[in-house]
Amino acid sequence: MDKKVAIFRKEHFNAAHRLFVPEWDDAKNEEVFGKCSNPNYHGHNYDLVIKIVGVPDPKTGYVMNLKTLSDIIQENVLDKFDHKNLNLDTTYFKKLNPTAENIAIIIYEILREKIDSKFDLFVRLYETERNFIEYPVK
Amino acid sequence: MDKKVAIFRKEHFNAAHRLFVPEWDDAKNEEVFGKCSNPNYHGHNYDLVIKIVGVPDPKTGYVMNLKTLSDIIQENVLDKFDHKNLNLDTTYFKKLNPTAENIAIIIYEILREKIDSKFDLFVRLYETERNFIEYPVK
Amino acid sequence: MDKKVAIFRKEHFNAAHRLFVPEWDDAKNEEVFGKCSNPNYHGHNYDLVIKIVGVPDPKTGYVMNLKTLSDIIQENVLDKFDHKNLNLDTTYFKKLNPTAENIAIIIYEILREKIDSKFDLFVRLYETERNFIEYPVK
Amino acid sequence: MDKKVAIFRKEHFNAAHRLFVPEWDDAKNEEVFGKCSNPNYHGHNYDLVIKIVGVPDPKTGYVMNLKTLSDIIQENVLDKFDHKNLNLDTTYFKKLNPTAENIAIIIYEILREKIDSKFDLFVRLYETERNFIEYPVK
Amino acid sequence: MDKKVAIFRKEHFNAAHRLFVPEWDDAKNEEVFGKCSNPNYHGHNYDLVIKIVGVPDPKTGYVMNLKTLSDIIQENVLDKFDHKNLNLDTTYFKKLNPTAENIAIIIYEILREKIDSKFDLFVRLYETERNFIEYPVK
Amino acid sequence: MDKKVAIFRKEHFNAAHRLFVPEWDDAKNEEVFGKCSNPNYHGHNYDLVIKIVGVPDPKTGYVMNLKTLSDIIQENVLDKFDHKNLNLDTTYFKKLNPTAENIAIIIYEILREKIDSKFDLFVRLYETERNFIEYPVK
Repeated sequence: MDKKVAIFRKEHFNAAHRLFVPEWDDAKNEEVFGKCSNPNYHGHNYDLVIKIVGVPDPKTGYVMNLKTLSDIIQENVLDKFDHKNLNLDTTYFKKLNPTAENIAIIIYEILREKIDSKFDLFVRLYETERNFIEYPVK
Repeated sequence: MDKKVAIFRKEHFNAAHRLFVPEWDDAKNEEVFGKCSNPNYHGHNYDLVIKIVGVPDPKTGYVMNLKTLSDIIQENVLDKFDHKNLNLDTTYFKKLNPTAENIAIIIYEILREKIDSKFDLFVRLYETERNFIEYPVK
Repeated sequence: MDKKVAIFRKEHFNAAHRLFVPEWDDAKNEEVFGKCSNPNYHGHNYDLVIKIVGVPDPKTGYVMNLKTLSDIIQENVLDKFDHKNLNLDTTYFKKLNPTAENIAIIIYEILREKIDSKFDLFVRLYETERNFIEYPVK
Repeated sequence: MDKKVAIFRKEHFNAAHRLFVPEWDDAKNEEVFGKCSNPNYHGHNYDLVIKIVGVPDPKTGYVMNLKTLSDIIQENVLDKFDHKNLNLDTTYFKKLNPTAENIAIIIYEILREKIDSKFDLFVRLYETERNFIEYPVK
Repeated sequence: MDKKVAIFRKEHFNAAHRLFVPEWDDAKNEEVFGKCSNPNYHGHNYDLVIKIVGVPDPKTGYVMNLKTLSDIIQENVLDKFDHKNLNLDTTYFKKLNPTAENIAIIIYEILREKIDSKFDLFVRLYETERNFIEYPVK
Repeated sequence: MDKKVAIFRKEHFNAAHRLFVPEWDDAKNEEVFGKCSNPNYHGHNYDLVIKIVGVPDPKTGYVMNLKTLSDIIQENVLDKFDHKNLNLDTTYFKKLNPTAENIAIIIYEILREKIDSKFDLFVRLYETERNFIEYPVK
């Protein structure tokens, strides 16, 4: 029976964002999102951990070359998000609130199209060292 | 289909404890628990990671406001355990040995009553950077 | 002879900023500041370590109560900078570029007025885990 | 019903290794493994996290004494791998490429024989802070 | 001219303590030391970093063998403090308040007698990740 | 008066090495260097922190662009040391024992020629999380 192994690659990006629901007024947004609804944005050093599950190649011993994985993340996620304003500079959060939950889901959907479907894919996103997210949940 | 996301909040507390079985003599306790059975107690900086699994609210993008989760942990766990002697100052470890396993189970049971039952709940407890616990196990 | 001890307190804040020189055009700003000159801002989880040097009180054994120090940092730095846009939401960086160097100098100048002059004061500011600053230099 | 708890113990070792497939020429090995195929070896500080799942003893509150677990890891893994050349100084990687995937599988197979079969066993291996592996996958 | 190099060794110990001034009443102690004056003690995972400054031996390239330094710290500090109650189980804090400042000074004084006087010696003590101390100050 | 600021940049490299004095026999080398004298080499993930002290440019607010500093470290240190055998693949440790002390001194000497002499330069090198070095010492 083939042995499944999970490989992980950690990357990071720095971005600004603002949390708010457009149809709510400022008072309601501040009540729900607190300081995170500051209209002039705030920001984070996001740490991103991508997990791939698959069977190691019997010759190379690699599930997938982590350099290849790192390049895919760089080109499809970091080049779009790093040193950007997530609300203004990306297409993903025009109508979707850029909570850590939604950022993780978007990153999953972006990468799912780029990673061979024979591999399972999971995203862990640290907004701060103390607040983080995993998607999907097994 | 609804998308389940796991959110994590990391908190910490500093406490003293002693591991021992009352019906055993000192020699037996030292044999089993080593330095951890010191009658005058020792202590730890415990790091506590609470994991909640649920579906993000389509409007806010939050599974649960992490500030709300942090407040629940503060009021129900940290206010009881932080800067306390777990054996003497809490009601939970009068007859139960305060191993990391048991502390994690107790924290789970405390929080399970405070967290909406639509959410799955998991506890990770670091006694030291090198010794840690997860409960429950999926 | 009195024994001098250094005490350190680590705090953090999340903020957005943009690096640029107003009298330069966009091309020149991008050449010098790269992605950091993005007009829509980006952001960081800043870690701030404040160092105080003084002689411990012979009775309490404290150079200064770290809780007091934490409150001073909270009121004078974090309440102004956390979840803010450093360029737009603070008075300090209207004409001063919010590089990590300048943020550290400003934090020093703010705290120097609030910390008893019998104590030496030093600021360490992490913009990321890999880029950080100390001011002043002994 | 018995409550299952996962306990974790983190250890580390420092080792040299080289990645290559013997039947490939140098150009092919460099194409696949990059700098990791350097014939004179390079090395890592490996962090190893062993996870054991079981039911805490009702008297001691321990799933397993972490000191006992640490001793088993020391004797069966660290004494063989620490400050060693994985390709030359161990018997495991004579024909098997010492990728992080394969090292994790080997460590699992070594420990599986030493850990009581009533416990589930999992291995997490950090080759660097940013590249890591888990085996087996639930 | 000889080149001075600083070498650092990080160790850790887990201990319980209580902060209070015996001639003060409980209200005064709680006012000054807050939760740290809990009569039943609390505890910490202390991280200890010892810094030695000297000239590397031209043959070995060592200022001092870090294994030797580690053994000296183990025998003279860790064996006395690890898994102990600093107030009750050691001789040093019978009349001296075990603040991080005083613990660092005591560790310095213990080690200064054991480390060759040709080396400069410095102590850094982390009580928590966010509260730490250095002694002496250059 | 100009305000001096210290800027830090953290990089890392993975390398193999062996500690030994060629004119000593194996027994003597093992007595002094222990497991570090293993003839087949072992390795480390070295973390390197470079500190530059200077006065921020009044217009840009930079002491030195950290991207420029990072590029200098990459080209002059990492390209030579990363994924290499320090004893065999570099010119620096043919006659010099690659202790952390000597690696730090060599990195200082390499970078001192590449960094403008108006800046002070300091090297911190982590061989492991628990063993590290600083050179020069102020």
